[in-house]
Amino acid sequence: MKAGLYPYFLPLAGQEGATVRRSGRELIMCGSNNYLGLTADPRVHAAARAALDRYGSSSTGSRFLNGNTDLHEELEAELADFLGKPAALVLSTGYQANLGALAGLLTPRDYAVVDRDAHASLVDGCRLSGAKVRRFPHNDAEGLRRTLEQLPDAAARLVIVDGVYSMEGDICDLPAITAVCAQYGARLLVDDAHGLGVLAGGRGTAAHFDLTDQVDLITVTFSKALASLGGAVVGSEEAIHYLKHKARSLMFSASMTPTSTAAALTALRILRAEPHLTTDVRAKADHVRRGLIAAGVGTGDSTTPIIPVPVPDAAGTLAIWERLVRAGVYVNPVLPPAATPRLRTSYMATHTRAQLDRVVEVLGSEPELRRAGDRVASSVSVA
Amino acid sequence: MKAGLYPYFLPLAGQEGATVRRSGRELIMCGSNNYLGLTADPRVHAAARAALDRYGSSSTGSRFLNGNTDLHEELEAELADFLGKPAALVLSTGYQANLGALAGLLTPRDYAVVDRDAHASLVDGCRLSGAKVRRFPHNDAEGLRRTLEQLPDAAARLVIVDGVYSMEGDICDLPAITAVCAQYGARLLVDDAHGLGVLAGGRGTAAHFDLTDQVDLITVTFSKALASLGGAVVGSEEAIHYLKHKARSLMFSASMTPTSTAAALTALRILRAEPHLTTDVRAKADHVRRGLIAAGVGTGDSTTPIIPVPVPDAAGTLAIWERLVRAGVYVNPVLPPAATPRLRTSYMATHTRAQLDRVVEVLGSEPELRRAGDRVASSVSVA
Repeated sequence: MKAGLYPYFLPLAGQEGATVRRSGRELIMCGSNNYLGLTADPRVHAAARAALDRYGSSSTGSRFLNGNTDLHEELEAELADFLGKPAALVLSTGYQANLGALAGLLTPRDYAVVDRDAHASLVDGCRLSGAKVRRFPHNDAEGLRRTLEQLPDAAARLVIVDGVYSMEGDICDLPAITAVCAQYGARLLVDDAHGLGVLAGGRGTAAHFDLTDQVDLITVTFSKALASLGGAVVGSEEAIHYLKHKARSLMFSASMTPTSTAAALTALRILRAEPHLTTDVRAKADHVRRGLIAAGVGTGDSTTPIIPVPVPDAAGTLAIWERLVRAGVYVNPVLPPAATPRLRTSYMATHTRAQLDRVVEVLGSEPELRRAGDRVASSVSVA
Repeated sequence: MKAGLYPYFLPLAGQEGATVRRSGRELIMCGSNNYLGLTADPRVHAAARAALDRYGSSSTGSRFLNGNTDLHEELEAELADFLGKPAALVLSTGYQANLGALAGLLTPRDYAVVDRDAHASLVDGCRLSGAKVRRFPHNDAEGLRRTLEQLPDAAARLVIVDGVYSMEGDICDLPAITAVCAQYGARLLVDDAHGLGVLAGGRGTAAHFDLTDQVDLITVTFSKALASLGGAVVGSEEAIHYLKHKARSLMFSASMTPTSTAAALTALRILRAEPHLTTDVRAKADHVRRGLIAAGVGTGDSTTPIIPVPVPDAAGTLAIWERLVRAGVYVNPVLPPAATPRLRTSYMATHTRAQLDRVVEVLGSEPELRRAGDRVASSVSVA
């Protein structure tokens, strides 16, 4: 790849709120999953420092053995309560939460029925479980129905979707998906990494549709809205108890650090106390979306703080990305095979209106983004 | 399980150095992997606080995209230098380091040849890779030779071992294992989770035998001697570069938090500046080992800070464990199928002589531990 055009593994030298420093310059950060801006919140930092003092910098062990603290259990109790489920299990990363849930619950006799665009950690969890995997067309309940119809009635079937898709920013069609699951007696797991803290006062996708009772398991990560690193599986007492003794990614990995646990717990409490944060971040994203559309730039099907901006081709993506960085805007370039070429942009409750207007101005001044936007708009209007 | 005898997921209410608080009481901590006691070190804490201020409580993204910082890269460079290899790749947990290395490098055409007692994360990594898995008898180079002999010469074969085995505390017979690997043209991966910071001035098992050049990949965790949470794969530039774009547990997981990265980096620097810590922890463990042997208590084959104490049976394990806790000593009870029944005890550079003498006194006063020790001793003398 041409020197200067390699846009991955960029070392950032600091991060505060809605901007980030790189090579001595400040960039507006439109590539973070820090939706509520809580990674810089003084209350989150105070809790992290207090946990460091009290518990040390590491648990040095699995929660199963010496790595469990009262903080981990508080986080589980408050998260389960917030999401409206009986129990939760906290693991070291969101990736490991999905691996633990799927490899813990599914056996090679079972079927995992997975949305074509589901997150890679869900795919890896299915693979690790040895279950028989079937993919269905993205967010297509009718496609799911056709897939389930072909499976033996007696087999256990777990349908696996994202609540909010991380690349497209579109919301799962949960009303239709849950109806099909109910019809075929399939269980449902929703990975709500990008829905938690964003939809329904932060309660996420199931609550957004008032369908929490129709979702068997919700997995979440703490490394997005909740300003930390870690993840959880949320569901029935029975499922969670089973996973405590079956999820190898829980049992054979050191637990979330005390500082990360305290950060996530405090971020969760802030979110509950200040639900306006979740409407703020969506209003900020809507402001950008309107501006981009007015400028003729494509914004995909997203109605969330993730706005995918289509670009004409892979080579163009990197050139545009570099110009944006020079203009002071940081976004994430996405290339095939991860997805069709696009800039994945995402927004935070703490972005100022001036920052967002500048982002619209910078993106809107790229002729190729406007051309790609035209193509998307015309293909949408034709469809 | 009988109420009061469930010894797992115990919530600890604080941890400072060599003791831990539980239900309002202080226990001597003999169940931690905090070998150098650095989780409570003021320099580690200062670095973690500074990183929190500068970078925030979370990276909120993958290193591949927005989650990389100069801290992560410093840690990689210093770790690779310390271990005597060209390059390193830092992942969010040690579990994910093993998954990333194995699922990233092995294909279904390859053979993974795995020590029978290798860590669960290595087993999961092999499973995720789809490689053909063969197990060989624990730490048995001749058994490894027999296994390799049966595999097609043309196939890629990766031998996978622990440097120090986490349950038995025994050290890998690396001189014999590397000789067999060389003879059969097999590559070798050593998971040195429990060797890093403990053997060879902290450089670990390969350095202990002066065989670093004979080991292709070393994986480590930061959640043991290095007082943090995270892990790394260490090896050639070529392998590491490949993994940066192939290790799904790296690409699809948020990166180590800034605080954890700073903690691990600072712990590594302390370890390099004060190698006496690594001899301290081994001397402390040797003191306990001598005391236990003198009291007639079994200590397995360990020569490291992990001392497995055999117990007669599973039910006895829990009863003894509970008496030890009442006497103020925290250990980890291990039951089948994880391993034969034992108390896994482990020691720290920061344990005081008085604390260790008390541990020997408490363990030595258990008649069943002495009886189990007798049986081990007699079976060893017969063998």
